[in-house]
Amino acid sequence: MFKDASLEEIDVIMQESRKAFLVYSKYSLKQRAAFMYAIAEELEKAGDALIQTAMSETHLPEARLRGERARTMFQLTSYADACVNGQWLDARIDTAIPDKTPPKPDIRKMLVPLGPVVVFGASNFPFAYSTAGGDTACALAAGCSVVVKAHPAHEATSQMVAEAIWAAAKRTGMPDGLFAHVHGRGFETGEALVKHPHTAAVGFTGSTAGGKQLFDWGNQRKVPIPVFAEMGSINPVFLLPGKLGEAAAETAKQYAGSITLGVGQFCTNPGLLIGVEGEGLQTFIKTLGQEIAQVAPATMLHPGIAKAYNSKKELALSQEGVETIGKAAKEAAEFDGAALVATATGAEFLRNPVLHQEVFGPYSLVIRCKDATELQAVAEKLEGQLTATLMANDSDVATHATLIDAIKGMCGRFIMNGVPTGVEVCLSMQHGGPYPATTDSRYSAVGADGIKRFARPLSFQGWKNEWLPDELKDENPLGIWRTINNTLSNGSVSRK
Amino acid sequence: MFKDASLEEIDVIMQESRKAFLVYSKYSLKQRAAFMYAIAEELEKAGDALIQTAMSETHLPEARLRGERARTMFQLTSYADACVNGQWLDARIDTAIPDKTPPKPDIRKMLVPLGPVVVFGASNFPFAYSTAGGDTACALAAGCSVVVKAHPAHEATSQMVAEAIWAAAKRTGMPDGLFAHVHGRGFETGEALVKHPHTAAVGFTGSTAGGKQLFDWGNQRKVPIPVFAEMGSINPVFLLPGKLGEAAAETAKQYAGSITLGVGQFCTNPGLLIGVEGEGLQTFIKTLGQEIAQVAPATMLHPGIAKAYNSKKELALSQEGVETIGKAAKEAAEFDGAALVATATGAEFLRNPVLHQEVFGPYSLVIRCKDATELQAVAEKLEGQLTATLMANDSDVATHATLIDAIKGMCGRFIMNGVPTGVEVCLSMQHGGPYPATTDSRYSAVGADGIKRFARPLSFQGWKNEWLPDELKDENPLGIWRTINNTLSNGSVSRK
Repeated sequence: MFKDASLEEIDVIMQESRKAFLVYSKYSLKQRAAFMYAIAEELEKAGDALIQTAMSETHLPEARLRGERARTMFQLTSYADACVNGQWLDARIDTAIPDKTPPKPDIRKMLVPLGPVVVFGASNFPFAYSTAGGDTACALAAGCSVVVKAHPAHEATSQMVAEAIWAAAKRTGMPDGLFAHVHGRGFETGEALVKHPHTAAVGFTGSTAGGKQLFDWGNQRKVPIPVFAEMGSINPVFLLPGKLGEAAAETAKQYAGSITLGVGQFCTNPGLLIGVEGEGLQTFIKTLGQEIAQVAPATMLHPGIAKAYNSKKELALSQEGVETIGKAAKEAAEFDGAALVATATGAEFLRNPVLHQEVFGPYSLVIRCKDATELQAVAEKLEGQLTATLMANDSDVATHATLIDAIKGMCGRFIMNGVPTGVEVCLSMQHGGPYPATTDSRYSAVGADGIKRFARPLSFQGWKNEWLPDELKDENPLGIWRTINNTLSNGSVSRK
Repeated sequence: MFKDASLEEIDVIMQESRKAFLVYSKYSLKQRAAFMYAIAEELEKAGDALIQTAMSETHLPEARLRGERARTMFQLTSYADACVNGQWLDARIDTAIPDKTPPKPDIRKMLVPLGPVVVFGASNFPFAYSTAGGDTACALAAGCSVVVKAHPAHEATSQMVAEAIWAAAKRTGMPDGLFAHVHGRGFETGEALVKHPHTAAVGFTGSTAGGKQLFDWGNQRKVPIPVFAEMGSINPVFLLPGKLGEAAAETAKQYAGSITLGVGQFCTNPGLLIGVEGEGLQTFIKTLGQEIAQVAPATMLHPGIAKAYNSKKELALSQEGVETIGKAAKEAAEFDGAALVATATGAEFLRNPVLHQEVFGPYSLVIRCKDATELQAVAEKLEGQLTATLMANDSDVATHATLIDAIKGMCGRFIMNGVPTGVEVCLSMQHGGPYPATTDSRYSAVGADGIKRFARPLSFQGWKNEWLPDELKDENPLGIWRTINNTLSNGSVSRK
């Protein structure tokens, strides 16, 4: 439908992006925010046509897509608010001490934008983590220009969103080339974008293989650049005996919902449920199987994802000691995802790395450990995760300190007595985690703290007040919070 | 003198470091700080013997080493203060909104330590950026265990500092293995440390080749880890016409001091001085040559550095169009560094990449540009730098906006009318910069913000107050600054 960008076109786009960056990076925080608010408005103005296009490309239901567009607008406006608030700038001011030996100069520091950012959107979030999604919003707030590579699975949706962004750029007076949008089905497009000398950082949401490839390209450049790849996760859930004793069936019902939400196509989908053999776990398994049977199959995002889901599910089920607990009773159409939950022992899980692999879709594996020691061994064997969850009552928490430590070490978000699906957009959200969940556990892909991915500190030493950026001027014209001589303050600075 | 660690010994050390991490990472901020204060005290107690050992190994003068030990103690105590202050934790709290659809859970986030950190000390700072130096202090403040590889050029000094750290650990009740110290002359030791599965991060100060190798090893691991390498820099200084018209000779005298400070063995040594042809630059060059002639040669850190200095200096001087302006009049002994300044045209500099290379020692190259356009071209051709300096009067600043933008883009610290040598230890200091100055421009190796290199955010969702770490509890028992529902506060939280 859309023409792939040639290498020559990519070069021109990156040159233009660099030029636009040099202009935009000097725009005020308010000007950046005005652009972001305008993008949110244009997304709304794109109306039903945008929703219809996304429905036809992604097979996601209308209500979900309307909700996701609203979330995308909220991200843009709340990150714009955070941009103006300026707390993310980590402004620090240390005033001069002229009579120190040697004299201490006046030094001030703040975050400055990195440069053009290349964004690879997610297939499973055509709005919120794609063209005008979280990475784009963070990069724009940071003061960077953005080049998005459209996801081939929703390229028409992506094009419409790009047009909304251009309309917003035009009416808020943004420089040409600040936002660019390229199509490309082969890996060559992505490779050229990551390796272009003007590219300063990369945001990616998708598979482990894809993210790792971009990470490697980023590191192998003459000038390495940060690649923030949010990749796979099986989001383990630990079911403790006290909690199951109180609420095994309720917990199973809660998890049947979380496993099958959005046909299981969330990076926070709970793919592994781990408990200790006993009556509680038996009740949990039985109820989970019954609940899953009632979930109707539904069309997955695209045929490739449906095929991968079925083959990975079959691979898991073909492993020794893996038994099906329950599966969707209704027959599945060709590109549907049909829910299935299986079980295996802790010993099998510890032995067989295939069982550790993510099966992207409405699938989950219940691990039956023979005792708390084996449960601990399973926890310690797991790779880095976006989330981990503990289902526990007070007594469970009191008696599982070592398990809780192990869980803290493996994940970016630790949920107590809840489900991992549902990622709030707020400052306290960490959507990230130790490798291989992401390539950089020190940053979040959700929440305004994600802005910091695309900025670096710059110190200004010995500058006259009038030469400094407004963010660092004595009189604090922007009214932001700054750390002045080691104390937080939203006031002004008195120079001696 | 000391035995190199075998691969088996390194494995045992890393296992012990991991065990110690699991204990220490749960110690309170105050307990971590108590250890760090004790290290500072033990360094002082090590007395004259430590200074004498360092003098014999590094050939640095006594006053410098006494000053550097004091700086190291200040780093330890001031980062300990910052650790307790808790602002570095970036604590964020978003309270629950139960009547939202879907209900918004309570989420709280703070930084948690990464794991065992491997530190490679610098040859040019036997105290401040070595065994108990900035990287070690930051890692301990973050809650990490530390394994230091002693620099072979000052291994006895390093051993004495390690013993001071062990004495401090003992009297403050730290777990065994929290700090470990290994010797190793070959690259195998470093490789084994960076590649060990328990290593979670690496700090390095040294050459570009060495830092880049560690960075590559860190990225090529099964689980990649961050490698913070602070590498080379030529620290360009831009001499603008207005400033030179007012103060060419004074500026030359100031720079003769900065170029030769510590026999030029600072990573912030100004290796490149760039101006536009004219009377002012001629006066600057003439005075600089005269001043440099008067600087007596002095012994460099070790014979390897002296040899490298001489061969790189000879290479630079052998390039077409490079002429000596002035050199130390007094004859140099075998391992002395003799100061020398040379000059070349802007055209030669733009043509010849050899002239862009760092010559570590008391050497600097003055570039004579034919006009402001060529000056701008030189600025745009430069690689990433730790520092860049502008010598300018008000009128120069007003007429060089494009140059100022280019300088901002290349460096981590932008000095106005000063010298780059002299790195203050304070929050506003950025000691870092775009590649190849460092491998990660988003972090500082100096100042308490460096603590963040060794930590990552962890979100706690739906936790009861009593289960949360003290840092995130409602009542704010530590009295730290936290962002509560998007507003900074050092108060408590009221849960609905």
